[in-house]
Amino acid sequence: MASPLTVGSARVKEARKLSRRSVRTERRLFLADGPKAVEGALGVPGCVVEVFATITGSVEYADLLSAAHVVTPVDDRALAALSDAVNPAGVVAVCRHLDVPLAQLLSRSSQDQDGRRPVIEPRPRLLVICADVRDPGNAGTVIRTADAVGAVGVVLAGHSVDLHNPKTVRASVGSVFHLPIALESDPAVAVAAARAAGYRVLAADGAGEVDLFAADLSQPTAWLFGNEAWGLPDDLAALADHRVAIPIHGRAESLNLSTAAAVCLYASARTQQR
Amino acid sequence: MASPLTVGSARVKEARKLSRRSVRTERRLFLADGPKAVEGALGVPGCVVEVFATITGSVEYADLLSAAHVVTPVDDRALAALSDAVNPAGVVAVCRHLDVPLAQLLSRSSQDQDGRRPVIEPRPRLLVICADVRDPGNAGTVIRTADAVGAVGVVLAGHSVDLHNPKTVRASVGSVFHLPIALESDPAVAVAAARAAGYRVLAADGAGEVDLFAADLSQPTAWLFGNEAWGLPDDLAALADHRVAIPIHGRAESLNLSTAAAVCLYASARTQQR
Repeated sequence: MASPLTVGSARVKEARKLSRRSVRTERRLFLADGPKAVEGALGVPGCVVEVFATITGSVEYADLLSAAHVVTPVDDRALAALSDAVNPAGVVAVCRHLDVPLAQLLSRSSQDQDGRRPVIEPRPRLLVICADVRDPGNAGTVIRTADAVGAVGVVLAGHSVDLHNPKTVRASVGSVFHLPIALESDPAVAVAAARAAGYRVLAADGAGEVDLFAADLSQPTAWLFGNEAWGLPDDLAALADHRVAIPIHGRAESLNLSTAAAVCLYASARTQQR
Repeated sequence: MASPLTVGSARVKEARKLSRRSVRTERRLFLADGPKAVEGALGVPGCVVEVFATITGSVEYADLLSAAHVVTPVDDRALAALSDAVNPAGVVAVCRHLDVPLAQLLSRSSQDQDGRRPVIEPRPRLLVICADVRDPGNAGTVIRTADAVGAVGVVLAGHSVDLHNPKTVRASVGSVFHLPIALESDPAVAVAAARAAGYRVLAADGAGEVDLFAADLSQPTAWLFGNEAWGLPDDLAALADHRVAIPIHGRAESLNLSTAAAVCLYASARTQQR
């Protein structure tokens, strides 16, 4: 076995540059940090370019690393330089970007509509559109919840946080590798495309006219969620079929974005699974 | 009007010490940072000891500050020293600790059971017990959601994060001031006390034997939530009446703590509100 690469080695230095968004965007590569993320990445054909692991990490995660063609040993300092975790877990992978074109995400979900191809997606038929979500923890958590309800995919629209930010990937706990995610700079385009693909569009909006638990959630639904601080702009919410509010029984003015998304998505999943 | 206090003034220096947990605990004081928190604090009789505001903050938040007896002007640097926000909002209050004894929290909720006092709490009858929640953002978000569903109160049990940590207070967006919160070092004591007060105890547990959406949620319920990383220890979960799992339809292994809590609490509120 080759001796572990140090923080000064050219390969580690190159990989480390992927902590910058500009470099990630240019090379269409990013770092999957920790066993959950690396396991998820290895489960996506063609995603992993290279795996780095410390000696300890290679032993501890031998099972999941058996799916990798080659694992490059690095020393603890080199691994720490590639990780943004407070306590690096000992394994990091360089991965190809995950985002798929919006049309591809939506065609996958509408294969049962043209009648020529078999139904691939089981119920529930749920899509998530995030407009201008800015916090990577929120974005990753919404992706994790979308995965949990078996959503068809997630669209990060508008000026949303980078999908390949290490904090987004970590907060998703592997889910960025489990379901297709599309990027679309114009949220209105995402809404129009979702509707054209057969989804009813519901905007989560504290001032919405429909109570979540009185809403008809049985149809294929694209949930539209807004920014953490200012929610959905009126002109965007107006594009939805309905504005839906989660009832507030106490004195809180609103819910956190990722908890609101979880309540809406599980309300849909509960109805669709019946 | 007196000239604004600087960062070197004795009163600002004293207040600034409350950024340390040991000082907060000793003095039973903490800092409420920003307009949402200060507004919440001013709504709790006897809570606010002192309010500091910049000139800009005094003007911008004149309405809510009209509830304060005195507002002490400080300069921008002094305000920034009292705030842990990236962009301090211009107003900070020194407040008395909020926690109430567990017995008091529970007696408030059982006033309708002994038949001698009128019913004060409307339905839903929900209590939240967090065991060993460590992340202040999660703790604050769970408190905010408990407030939103109209819960009777929240118990931070075991080795949970400090209720009066600025990040907990901020994540609650004012909700720490809206409902009673008790601290109890032994989660088993909190569970026993909740049961004695008439609550059915449901443990949120990914490996639970009851599906959340098949569970009977009509009774007064104390929801028991565990740690972000390791969930509920077996011996603690075994004290609950049932272990309840949120169904996972996709490939995610679990949900984030605060989103799981939101899904459970809204499932209860939805049933109880019918």
